[in-house]
Amino acid sequence: MLKIIITIFVSVFSSLSLADELPSWREGATKNNIITFVESVTTPGDKNFVPINKRIAVFDNDGTLWSEKPYYFQLAFALDRLKELAPDNPEWQQDPILKAALEGDIKTLISGGKESLLKVIMLSHTGITTEEFNEIVIRWTSEARHPATKRLYIDMVYQPMLELLEYLRAKEFETWIVSGGGIDFMRAWSDKVYGIPPEQVIGSSIKTSYKIIDGIPTIIREPQIDFINDKSGKPVGIHKHIGIRPIAAFGNSDGDLEMLQWTTAGDGGRLGVIIHHTDAEREYAYDKNTHIGRLDKALTEASIKGWTVVNMKKDWGIIFPME
Amino acid sequence: MLKIIITIFVSVFSSLSLADELPSWREGATKNNIITFVESVTTPGDKNFVPINKRIAVFDNDGTLWSEKPYYFQLAFALDRLKELAPDNPEWQQDPILKAALEGDIKTLISGGKESLLKVIMLSHTGITTEEFNEIVIRWTSEARHPATKRLYIDMVYQPMLELLEYLRAKEFETWIVSGGGIDFMRAWSDKVYGIPPEQVIGSSIKTSYKIIDGIPTIIREPQIDFINDKSGKPVGIHKHIGIRPIAAFGNSDGDLEMLQWTTAGDGGRLGVIIHHTDAEREYAYDKNTHIGRLDKALTEASIKGWTVVNMKKDWGIIFPME
Repeated sequence: MLKIIITIFVSVFSSLSLADELPSWREGATKNNIITFVESVTTPGDKNFVPINKRIAVFDNDGTLWSEKPYYFQLAFALDRLKELAPDNPEWQQDPILKAALEGDIKTLISGGKESLLKVIMLSHTGITTEEFNEIVIRWTSEARHPATKRLYIDMVYQPMLELLEYLRAKEFETWIVSGGGIDFMRAWSDKVYGIPPEQVIGSSIKTSYKIIDGIPTIIREPQIDFINDKSGKPVGIHKHIGIRPIAAFGNSDGDLEMLQWTTAGDGGRLGVIIHHTDAEREYAYDKNTHIGRLDKALTEASIKGWTVVNMKKDWGIIFPME
Repeated sequence: MLKIIITIFVSVFSSLSLADELPSWREGATKNNIITFVESVTTPGDKNFVPINKRIAVFDNDGTLWSEKPYYFQLAFALDRLKELAPDNPEWQQDPILKAALEGDIKTLISGGKESLLKVIMLSHTGITTEEFNEIVIRWTSEARHPATKRLYIDMVYQPMLELLEYLRAKEFETWIVSGGGIDFMRAWSDKVYGIPPEQVIGSSIKTSYKIIDGIPTIIREPQIDFINDKSGKPVGIHKHIGIRPIAAFGNSDGDLEMLQWTTAGDGGRLGVIIHHTDAEREYAYDKNTHIGRLDKALTEASIKGWTVVNMKKDWGIIFPME
């Protein structure tokens, strides 16, 4: 009997709480667009109703679920890891790019272009087993802090997006990460931070190989790029991992343009959302004129295609969970 | 009130039905091994208890979930598709391999080795969009019939394995396919036939690319291999798609050896199972001496590692659902 009462209580409580499923989103057109879409695809009989097994929502990570300034947090991880390994690799001091990386001279590092960054990623991300890498990332996320806010990086996630993830899952959506970031880097903490399990994370990857080492089956991270999950790679990554077209996509930069196109070009109710960083006071303000997270073409296309643009300053009551 | 009564009834009924969750499995050591493992990892307090988010079981497809004789069903699909396309490609008649393929001369085709098969796969599986391919496979599975039994290929699945999939899912396992077969070929029917959604299918893949064609966002299947999910590729495919090590693996050939090694080498309760085709009367009997589904090294390793070997003839009361 107690069980029954609890069940009734819980079910009444959840219907009530639905009235306020996105408390950090200020009332207005943006919040309305999102809720109208979700109600429409989840209401049986609605012309846009979508069965549960097709309710796939995809989220970029850097700049969409957590901050990406002053530079991608995974680059901060790579630099910290490089420093850890430097004492065993004195020859790195002779390499101007590695020397810059070790001194935290991001400007010189970035001026070296893709090749320089790739070198840093390879040295910091490979040559170990997948399980070792996972542990190293977990340890880093529990210690490393953002240079400006001094908060743990994993606390630099957006509260309104956490609420959105929960809201969608309550409506029986699967919520997937589709990021240019490293798939195994994100998997180490995505469940804890976003409630997104490792198998629903799509990202860039390096090659791995299966080997038996001293009798122990092992997967090794090899120093070679496997897949870049950015721009036109995003629809490809989505197809590779999910195999069905999402009905909702959330991004914040031109790297997300193709994912938004692919998602919203399907039949029936579709939602495309762009997070526009407009809040220099509480977070950062940037769009066209930045190297990291540039938003230009996708913003133009948003107005043509009718995608929802989130104005962070205006639409979000709070930005970070600790506020 | 009615709802409450129904709820109670359903919950009593499901506990009762648990006594017979694998009715097509004959009583004996094999069935006991499987049930003992499942009970152990799902019982809170048990030393091998595994939380729900780590309950991953992986299944090979050809020869493990459905038949693979007289040759892989996907090859039958490729040949049927080739015949469909032949009228528009008269030059194929000048190519001895394609001519053999079109005439159903499997012996000549297979004697040409990997390259010949690859040619047939490329011509039959690429150059179209992912959505077109999906529709073609769905149509084929609704029409094409097995040469010996004259049944639809999708009816050539093993009833005991269907029960096992359901039983594991009832115990809150995720059930994944990890096959050397084509990922998109399987995804077209895996949900309908096995209750396994597209996002839980891992297989070999060809490259795809995202293109806007006549204004329409499209994913095209390119004539190039992306990944071979066989032998040492299986643990790599598992890591790529799932990101955590499974706790149970089911296979039937040497192509599954590395997947079984990787799965069973983890800590805690682990289950490795090999389906041994021993029933020439009801299905097929083969192991060491066959090109398709060869089982040799994995059978030797099973006895060393203590993996469970299913003797189809002895352990399975029925083999196909229609029996």
